[in-house]
Amino acid sequence: MLKYMIGIDAGGTHSTAIAYDENGKELGRAESGPGQINNDYELGIKNIAQAVNELRDKIDGDCIKVLAGIAGLSVVGNAPEVAATISSMVGNIPTRAITDSLLALYNGLEGADGALVIAGTGSVVNGRQDGSLIAVGGYGSLLGDEGSGYAITKAALQSALLSWDKREKNSLIDLFVKEFDVDNMGEVPAKFYNLTSPEVASKAVKVAKLADSGDEDARKIIEDQAHLLARDIIMCLDRYEDPKPMRVALTGSVLSNNAMMRSYMEAEVKEKYPDAVFSVSNGENARGVIFDKSKDYRYFTNHNDDE
Amino acid sequence: MLKYMIGIDAGGTHSTAIAYDENGKELGRAESGPGQINNDYELGIKNIAQAVNELRDKIDGDCIKVLAGIAGLSVVGNAPEVAATISSMVGNIPTRAITDSLLALYNGLEGADGALVIAGTGSVVNGRQDGSLIAVGGYGSLLGDEGSGYAITKAALQSALLSWDKREKNSLIDLFVKEFDVDNMGEVPAKFYNLTSPEVASKAVKVAKLADSGDEDARKIIEDQAHLLARDIIMCLDRYEDPKPMRVALTGSVLSNNAMMRSYMEAEVKEKYPDAVFSVSNGENARGVIFDKSKDYRYFTNHNDDE
Repeated sequence: MLKYMIGIDAGGTHSTAIAYDENGKELGRAESGPGQINNDYELGIKNIAQAVNELRDKIDGDCIKVLAGIAGLSVVGNAPEVAATISSMVGNIPTRAITDSLLALYNGLEGADGALVIAGTGSVVNGRQDGSLIAVGGYGSLLGDEGSGYAITKAALQSALLSWDKREKNSLIDLFVKEFDVDNMGEVPAKFYNLTSPEVASKAVKVAKLADSGDEDARKIIEDQAHLLARDIIMCLDRYEDPKPMRVALTGSVLSNNAMMRSYMEAEVKEKYPDAVFSVSNGENARGVIFDKSKDYRYFTNHNDDE
Repeated sequence: MLKYMIGIDAGGTHSTAIAYDENGKELGRAESGPGQINNDYELGIKNIAQAVNELRDKIDGDCIKVLAGIAGLSVVGNAPEVAATISSMVGNIPTRAITDSLLALYNGLEGADGALVIAGTGSVVNGRQDGSLIAVGGYGSLLGDEGSGYAITKAALQSALLSWDKREKNSLIDLFVKEFDVDNMGEVPAKFYNLTSPEVASKAVKVAKLADSGDEDARKIIEDQAHLLARDIIMCLDRYEDPKPMRVALTGSVLSNNAMMRSYMEAEVKEKYPDAVFSVSNGENARGVIFDKSKDYRYFTNHNDDE
């Protein structure tokens, strides 16, 4: 009988479950609602189980394990309980619950040691060496998220507001006055405060485009944010034991799409670590299930490793 | 018959109305709920009118004008309508509505031209010259509020988190681990995100105290925030016409209480503007009504200026 495994990336806006056979070939996928569990634990778990069960119904075979990467898991800190609860709702399939960032790390580094830099709406650097994890940053939009879409937009707004206060020119003023459809820069903050974080982050694309066109004010913003992210990567590499793993996988919308950002960032990291090897990881994080060699799956049935 | 006027400082948490005779002597005061009008217009107006009417009932005399300094007025931008509405609810007394920061400026500078620097939970620099107003900063906790209690706490947290990520010592780590009652610095952000802005701002006192005790990490935070506020003041003075008014009044909890902050800030401003004269303004902003010479009060009765 076909054996397969399911990885699920349970995020704040939606959850994606994907089934893979033992050669890593995708067999099918299912989507459900938010799987973040620190806002609404019951709903998050329910959405995760629903996506897994939808896949199980579709595929004729034996699901041997479920790996759930769950946003907000580290805050709650009860991974075994979460895994057991999910398992009980998906036919007692051996299940493991980890943070969504660790799932991304398994996928981005294909199971190898190294670092994964995520920069999308937020940002975080995760390093892994001999089974130990190092996290740098990831403190959210108010305290950190350096290099993220949110941080790029915020820094660009602050640059524009500073020039506005000085009554100096700044291309970012023109950009935001147009983008927010207002008469002058002074009216932008009131509009900004009505946006959600993803809406703020989405405007970073405009800043990046302006930078790409050669505009100096916008380029400065990208350079500054690339520097902050490079700083975080260097902190992570500094904390490894020798010999340090030199793979650095990059993921998230900002790093996938912004070549200027990547190039500044990589150059700065390579000044200190010339051997660092960068790669862009674009795949679904659910694919992390293929690379997870952990024995820490919760067994509730007569499954065993030799079966 | 005794003639008097009422000033009212209508803020986000409460409103304070104070009656003064024509020599500026306080005759009585009344408090009411929030008078901020961009969150709940009806409630704000109702609270303002209630405080004014309570004072009118207490004082045997003729109220000749009401000056309402209202938080959030600039965002709504309908001062004449607001003034007319309040007037209609307080016996048609001539009423003028201005922003709470302009009221603070009238009070802080006692009607003279100059600048008023407010740094409490938030921050803003307002300058006034020949009836024209200049605003610098005041963009709220996400985009600015440099030098405010909120900004001091945030910068101190970021400094502590950076050292935590580097696994370096920082006295601010010890401060926050104790303050938030957690095991390590990594647990602080989750707690921080549950706080209101005033709660965040209130922790700045601890940072200032640590700085006063000679701690270098905390001192750096105060110095940086003082620099940002000095930058804003210099931008304001730069924008005046010659001859520039050199009075700079300081108000808000941070500037009233933090001598180190004031001293760094004043020194930096004086490097560019040696003639700048600083004073700390602690009085009630409602007192601004004494110094407002505007003719722009809304008349609905047979009052006139010669009466």
